[in-house]
Amino acid sequence: MEEKDKPNEEDDQEVNPWKVSAKDGGKIDYDKLIDKFGCQRLDQSLIERVKRLTGRPPHVFLRRGVFFAHRDFNEILDAYERGYKFYLYTGRGPSSESLHLGHLIPFMFTKYLQDAFKVPLVIQLTDDEKCMWKDLSVEESIRLARENAKDIIACGFDISKTFIFSDFNFMCPAFYKNIVRVAKCVTINKAVGIFGFTGEDHIGKISFPPVQAVPSFPSSFPHLFCHKDNLRCLIPCAIDQDPYFRMTRDVAPRIGHRKPSLIESSFFPALQGENGKMSASDPNSAIYVTDSAKDIRNKINKYAFSGGQDSIENHRKYGANLEVDIPIKYLGFFLEDDAELEHIRAEYGAGRMLTGEVKKRLIEVLTELVERHRVARAAVTDETVDAFMAIRSLPYMFD
Amino acid sequence: MEEKDKPNEEDDQEVNPWKVSAKDGGKIDYDKLIDKFGCQRLDQSLIERVKRLTGRPPHVFLRRGVFFAHRDFNEILDAYERGYKFYLYTGRGPSSESLHLGHLIPFMFTKYLQDAFKVPLVIQLTDDEKCMWKDLSVEESIRLARENAKDIIACGFDISKTFIFSDFNFMCPAFYKNIVRVAKCVTINKAVGIFGFTGEDHIGKISFPPVQAVPSFPSSFPHLFCHKDNLRCLIPCAIDQDPYFRMTRDVAPRIGHRKPSLIESSFFPALQGENGKMSASDPNSAIYVTDSAKDIRNKINKYAFSGGQDSIENHRKYGANLEVDIPIKYLGFFLEDDAELEHIRAEYGAGRMLTGEVKKRLIEVLTELVERHRVARAAVTDETVDAFMAIRSLPYMFD
Repeated sequence: MEEKDKPNEEDDQEVNPWKVSAKDGGKIDYDKLIDKFGCQRLDQSLIERVKRLTGRPPHVFLRRGVFFAHRDFNEILDAYERGYKFYLYTGRGPSSESLHLGHLIPFMFTKYLQDAFKVPLVIQLTDDEKCMWKDLSVEESIRLARENAKDIIACGFDISKTFIFSDFNFMCPAFYKNIVRVAKCVTINKAVGIFGFTGEDHIGKISFPPVQAVPSFPSSFPHLFCHKDNLRCLIPCAIDQDPYFRMTRDVAPRIGHRKPSLIESSFFPALQGENGKMSASDPNSAIYVTDSAKDIRNKINKYAFSGGQDSIENHRKYGANLEVDIPIKYLGFFLEDDAELEHIRAEYGAGRMLTGEVKKRLIEVLTELVERHRVARAAVTDETVDAFMAIRSLPYMFD
Repeated sequence: MEEKDKPNEEDDQEVNPWKVSAKDGGKIDYDKLIDKFGCQRLDQSLIERVKRLTGRPPHVFLRRGVFFAHRDFNEILDAYERGYKFYLYTGRGPSSESLHLGHLIPFMFTKYLQDAFKVPLVIQLTDDEKCMWKDLSVEESIRLARENAKDIIACGFDISKTFIFSDFNFMCPAFYKNIVRVAKCVTINKAVGIFGFTGEDHIGKISFPPVQAVPSFPSSFPHLFCHKDNLRCLIPCAIDQDPYFRMTRDVAPRIGHRKPSLIESSFFPALQGENGKMSASDPNSAIYVTDSAKDIRNKINKYAFSGGQDSIENHRKYGANLEVDIPIKYLGFFLEDDAELEHIRAEYGAGRMLTGEVKKRLIEVLTELVERHRVARAAVTDETVDAFMAIRSLPYMFD
């Protein structure tokens, strides 16, 4: 059965790979999004299964619902339980020099999945996409892809299990053959329906969705998977990428491939408040991995939207509104200690803790995270990047 | 200035890469086509220049107006005269197992150009196009491309100057980068205007025109041309391919490339009469390079449309109508002796020669041509094909 957007008369939010906006600048309604996209909620029983199958505590992003939706993730676990491995596929459009914390989330989570399930991983850098959408030159897009690869590698991926590639530099017959196979199954009308292209868009844009689709198929990487073309694929990504993979899943069985499974995250909120993704055009809307300790302190203190009350008296009396408070949201992503987080929420919500104290703790957590990233990235040389991008087999583990 | 179709109220013929049809099944009006497409007539002075610059008699197809139109061919000759070489680019969509005589025409002419100007040549086999338009599998398209390559090689190309490639098997970063560069310059509306795609066409089709465009740019073949990215390109082709190269010429200067030049042929008529191209679905509409001597005799005698009169008496009285006579047309393509052809035309036109005699001479000419091709093709092994397709430099002559 074809997966598609449900018609929705009161469709008051727009979520696609290029735009995330809620009604009246409010919050994204993720329940509605699950319903509209037709994906499944990632419920507690699945999280318990992950815990049991991997023998590890589930990642913070699972425990706290950052990754909240999926498509057929249960089938990946069913097969894994029967002894069948899978591979992970994630990616990034390298549109900017340095990454912000929101960019790190899928990679941090993917690293956890790789370690927990001991599976190979392909990471696609869609420099072609960014060249086409952002009007960057081919050379500049490739340069950004390599710079971003360093930040990605700094997340700690296992080189023996990880292949990183740029579309421009990897393009090859096996990949192109699958692109054509996918493209044959998608009409122009269909692509316009899914992605909202118009006649004024250039043909590069409407040519691109198959390029993001085909890493879902192991036959796109014959060198990598040694022709294990029946290997399952799990894609961790933010839910704005769902349209690409709805299309991919629709096409897959028609060209003799398995549908990839998905595990999808909500968006990391901007410092100014939770109304979509952060904006690259406003450096004060996000914490970047290149920010200094002083930058982080200033940004959090100055811009992080507070749910605290307007006076200390009122705050002591009414407590903070945790639903809109950005420091609490950020701690939910990055403070690993469940007990401490619960304590802060309780104290802050009851007005016994002030915004300044919560921000102070967040500044500590983020400064440590960013500093750890900085050190890891500094150790990534051009030779390391070449090694991750080398065309090779990932010769292990498929038994 | 942008090159495009002139609006034409009385546009009674359709010529594009997928359809050639004249009004009411009549003849294509090539003068109108030149005017509509905005290309130039290949006049006698250019043919004289070719003769002078190459020191050879111009090819039959030039002398007799088979190649009748061009775009900036004069610039190629200007530069050649100043000592600058160019390269040739032609191609074929491998949609059928064996070729007919009409398919050989661009290759016979291209071989003449290669020999006369001593220049390198790239031949693109658009197996991806045929996979998408004819709904062939990827594997079958590649197989047909290799089979067709044997017929092409049998035309006598110089392996030290000729690179043949299949899109599926050649696709590589340099090629893909130029595809994206071209695609960025063509809107969906523009592609629809040039090629007539509809919303029900799949996105593979609208993705394809840049693939046929980029062999016009030497940077698509860095291995071949050793980064001589300013090399001029001359494309010999049938005029139905003009839309691809109008688009290419429109885009080229915007991405830092020279516009390719073109030299364009009319269509080889079907046995049944001159109303467009031959049809692969009707084997009796064409002479195939695999036809036996007996096939050729039968087809010419039975199907070749005659301009002779309906009785010998009338024929002796009125003579043949050479304008519609297919044996005379075919002799015009393949009988090299100008004096003999003129003699036959005069005798036949005056009714002194009968259709049977003209057909007998045509059967001799075609049988010899096809037999020569058969022998040459039999000598082409899979190793020969591999050698022509090998990625290598063509290391000579650019000085």
